Amino acid sequence: MKNYKIVLAYDGTRYNGWQKQGNTENTIQEKLERILKDISGQETEVFGSGRTDMGTHATGQVMNFHMNWKGSAESLLDAFNARLPEDIAGLSIEEKEPRFHSRLSAKAKHYSYSIWKSKKAPVFERKYVFRCEEELDIMAMKQAASAFIGEHDFKSFCANKRMKKSTVRTIYDIVFEETEDKLVLHFYGNGFLYQMVRILTGTLIEVGEGKRKASEMENILRAESREAAGFTAPSRGLFLREVYYESWKGGADA
Amino acid sequence: MKNYKIVLAYDGTRYNGWQKQGNTENTIQEKLERILKDISGQETEVFGSGRTDMGTHATGQVMNFHMNWKGSAESLLDAFNARLPEDIAGLSIEEKEPRFHSRLSAKAKHYSYSIWKSKKAPVFERKYVFRCEEELDIMAMKQAASAFIGEHDFKSFCANKRMKKSTVRTIYDIVFEETEDKLVLHFYGNGFLYQMVRILTGTLIEVGEGKRKASEMENILRAESREAAGFTAPSRGLFLREVYYESWKGGADA
Repeated sequence: MKNYKIVLAYDGTRYNGWQKQGNTENTIQEKLERILKDISGQETEVFGSGRTDMGTHATGQVMNFHMNWKGSAESLLDAFNARLPEDIAGLSIEEKEPRFHSRLSAKAKHYSYSIWKSKKAPVFERKYVFRCEEELDIMAMKQAASAFIGEHDFKSFCANKRMKKSTVRTIYDIVFEETEDKLVLHFYGNGFLYQMVRILTGTLIEVGEGKRKASEMENILRAESREAAGFTAPSRGLFLREVYYESWKGGADA
Repeated sequence: MKNYKIVLAYDGTRYNGWQKQGNTENTIQEKLERILKDISGQETEVFGSGRTDMGTHATGQVMNFHMNWKGSAESLLDAFNARLPEDIAGLSIEEKEPRFHSRLSAKAKHYSYSIWKSKKAPVFERKYVFRCEEELDIMAMKQAASAFIGEHDFKSFCANKRMKKSTVRTIYDIVFEETEDKLVLHFYGNGFLYQMVRILTGTLIEVGEGKRKASEMENILRAESREAAGFTAPSRGLFLREVYYESWKGGADA
């Protein structure tokens, strides 16, 4: 059995998220497992680097799976891509050592969240942005974001109320990218809790709108309670951009 | 009655083109007329600067219509935008002189056609590009395109076989914009025949793929026959970018 790593892009709009679970149909994982079985004739379980929610997108999700395959890795990627719908693509393939696991081996991740700030409607990007009608005070948002950098207990930013494991995570950086129409927040960290990026973003938007002060962020962290933080920004603006398998070296990714 | 001009953007994917015609349902024109009637209580006919085909997009379509409206033009645009679906947007509004007509007053137009040339699938732009799997010889395409600049009889590039009016048009410029993943062809001209941009693009793609020589273009023009030209590139890559109401001054638009 070889262990293959594939980097994936997908438009999450019409899927019930990444993870196959109970009766949930139309998940990305389920769709990919069906295709790999179709190619190889083998039941194949795929491991994602993390679940993405319903409607969340990816330009750099990583999965791995074990398969008996006699051809080249490239031929496997071609067969895979030939069977994918237009809203999912395999970007690259690599054969990895047997112990490589897309989730357990991951050292850091990059997520982005796109906020549409133009008064003109996002006709062509409507499924990939959250539209914010109010003027945003971006300086205040940057000041608030700086409170999240470093190692913190992010329990207030976790939607899983029954989370029993540690909610301590390290955010390496939050980078603001501003264009004429959009504000894109880039989050780099060693791991993210359930809906953490969306709750961080929602809280930062509330700061931008003047509903919260930047100086409140430390109290929100200290509260260790979901109720203390802001709203959960909708999944459509969220992208899993890259998964890193080497220690974080700082700086933005390619 | 005031005469309003509105600049529109739309994603043409789920519409049967711009023009209301016979039994065709779900056209953009029909949808906009229904909304304007809803706002004003008046039957309102809208005039587009030109029809766009089923699946063709616009970032700068122009329409005008006559309406009794007591509020400001901006309040009319707001009411209009509030009722539009997410895939259509009114970008700007202006009150014009009574004789202004979006089609008859137009002096020039800018269309673009997006060709996806990357081997990686266009997951997020799949509805806005034509995917070309073969390597394109862009220098040959540029050479071929130069034969179309100027005033020519474009009968060979017109899909309307019963066209009785003149098929002479002037193309001011064809600009090639190349990015890592895409080749975008920009066409500037005083007018375009039915499917002319798509047939010009299809013919240029055939040159890029080595199926035709750049030197053939003059013979295709001279043939004055649709059969002489190349295939009709699919509507999904085509955008109406801008309509000009002053004489062409050269150079690219904003």
